[in-house]
Amino acid sequence: MRPGPPLVCGLDLGGTKLLGILLDPTREDGPLLTERVPTPSGANAVEKALVELGARLVGRASSELGREVSGVGLGAPGLVDRSGALRYGPNLPGVVDVPLADVLQRGLGLPATVDNDATCAAWGEHERGAAKGCNHSITITLGTGIGAGITVKGEVLRGANGFAGEPGHMVVDPAGPPCPCGRRGCWERYASGSGLGRLAREAAHAGFAARVVELAGGDAEDVKGEHVTKAAAEGDDEALMVIRQFAWWVALGIANVVNLLDSEIVVLGGGLAEAGELLMQPTRDAYRELVLAADHRPTVPIVVAQLGEQAGAIGAALLAAART
Amino acid sequence: MRPGPPLVCGLDLGGTKLLGILLDPTREDGPLLTERVPTPSGANAVEKALVELGARLVGRASSELGREVSGVGLGAPGLVDRSGALRYGPNLPGVVDVPLADVLQRGLGLPATVDNDATCAAWGEHERGAAKGCNHSITITLGTGIGAGITVKGEVLRGANGFAGEPGHMVVDPAGPPCPCGRRGCWERYASGSGLGRLAREAAHAGFAARVVELAGGDAEDVKGEHVTKAAAEGDDEALMVIRQFAWWVALGIANVVNLLDSEIVVLGGGLAEAGELLMQPTRDAYRELVLAADHRPTVPIVVAQLGEQAGAIGAALLAAART
Repeated sequence: MRPGPPLVCGLDLGGTKLLGILLDPTREDGPLLTERVPTPSGANAVEKALVELGARLVGRASSELGREVSGVGLGAPGLVDRSGALRYGPNLPGVVDVPLADVLQRGLGLPATVDNDATCAAWGEHERGAAKGCNHSITITLGTGIGAGITVKGEVLRGANGFAGEPGHMVVDPAGPPCPCGRRGCWERYASGSGLGRLAREAAHAGFAARVVELAGGDAEDVKGEHVTKAAAEGDDEALMVIRQFAWWVALGIANVVNLLDSEIVVLGGGLAEAGELLMQPTRDAYRELVLAADHRPTVPIVVAQLGEQAGAIGAALLAAART
Repeated sequence: MRPGPPLVCGLDLGGTKLLGILLDPTREDGPLLTERVPTPSGANAVEKALVELGARLVGRASSELGREVSGVGLGAPGLVDRSGALRYGPNLPGVVDVPLADVLQRGLGLPATVDNDATCAAWGEHERGAAKGCNHSITITLGTGIGAGITVKGEVLRGANGFAGEPGHMVVDPAGPPCPCGRRGCWERYASGSGLGRLAREAAHAGFAARVVELAGGDAEDVKGEHVTKAAAEGDDEALMVIRQFAWWVALGIANVVNLLDSEIVVLGGGLAEAGELLMQPTRDAYRELVLAADHRPTVPIVVAQLGEQAGAIGAALLAAART
């Protein structure tokens, strides 16, 4: 009894959690099953967790849904080469030069593909979400750090080695704050959650953002990005001022990217995009001032991602389906 | 008597001169004929000069070479949309919103294509020059300003509107010097000929770069990029120091671009690339410090363009040949 075409398994390996889904690539609706487990420490434990979660989902496809699984796709945080090996992943200490595609292929006995997690999320948004129908798109995830995935002519842009889409480490101020990557003033220092926290702490030290500090428990040093978005959502004027400052930095990087790629749409995902229009509108306003020749080009929509935290796993599953 | 396949005409519209060539797209060798005329002022005069030069080359193809011309390609400085209209071209005052492809098509009775001049140069280098065989390439022209053209998967990247490839207006220092484009700290303020001149004038005011000032006629305020490259070519240590500073800024923008595109090769053209290894080697050294995770990715060759000032016209001709 096989009541439908084969499913694909999508996995998204995060710094703290590992998400797995089963998807029917022939249908537009969402995952048929979802599971999540904590991400363990160290390369061996990560490999084991990936194979175990994949095997469990393949088993459930058969036992609960009566379906086969034809392949597995994984999104991994960092530089993933074209063989599916994670070459550099600062968010997963110790997990470097691990041939993840081989590990999954051997462990599950299924064709496996691995791409950068933000590339997967971008493909998910392109196929099923906010960038649907847009050939030239960029999806940027604004979270603790910044990730990005690009489509060109309706296809994923992987680049020569699979490493394309790292605008977070574009230097936008050589005299700016040091970045864990070793440089100074990377865009990620400004337009990520940690950047938003820093802007808010600066505002607090200048005597502003009282409500933000209150939400952080009373100490300005404890302020994080989430306290700003929360106070802004309440309508706090000083938090909104910080959001506008933050939006300027978000827009700066977007303008730099659009100047290079001439994208048709910019999709913002990740935790900070949950601020929605509070962040989008000031970002759009600042973007118009920052992109080259705004008056001579069509407006590029800057919109919130639609697939939420499942974007990466959905995109990984669809990339696997396209290859198998 | 038709002793060969049709030729294509390539035109390159610069701020000061208009270059035209005839090329046999089936052969690897260079142009069969080359002509150049000064670029006149104003949209009407530019249109007339383009059609006249094109017509003259078509006539010479027939009378001198006994060959037909199947199409014409033009590279124009600025944002060229996909219909072949120049939408924004700060280097050609008054020439804005001009449908150049239509003008050529009507004036010459031949299929005409128009692209950004640096996009054409990049295509020339990809097909006949330094980026041959590289699917993911970027060619950056460092002259008075900065232009760039990108190939992805062996094809030209035009982007949604035809405007892709403008890293010169990527903001790399929001507190930097004002740019004629209206922003501050665009990469072009640092990594162009005017950027090199500024660095040298700063060095001169700090008591360095005596030989550079001498070459400029004795006044530090008259120092231009060319005086630095000339003194550096003579072996002047202080000019070489300025070149190294300059190379750091060149490398910064290259690293930002490679982080996004994961290019296989970076080709540097334009007047400043004539400095050759004097500029290339310090640029490569600085690039390694500036790109994300240099130790985990293959080295990207940073090399000098091979087609010189004909790159744009050759690329324009080949783009026309590919479309006709």
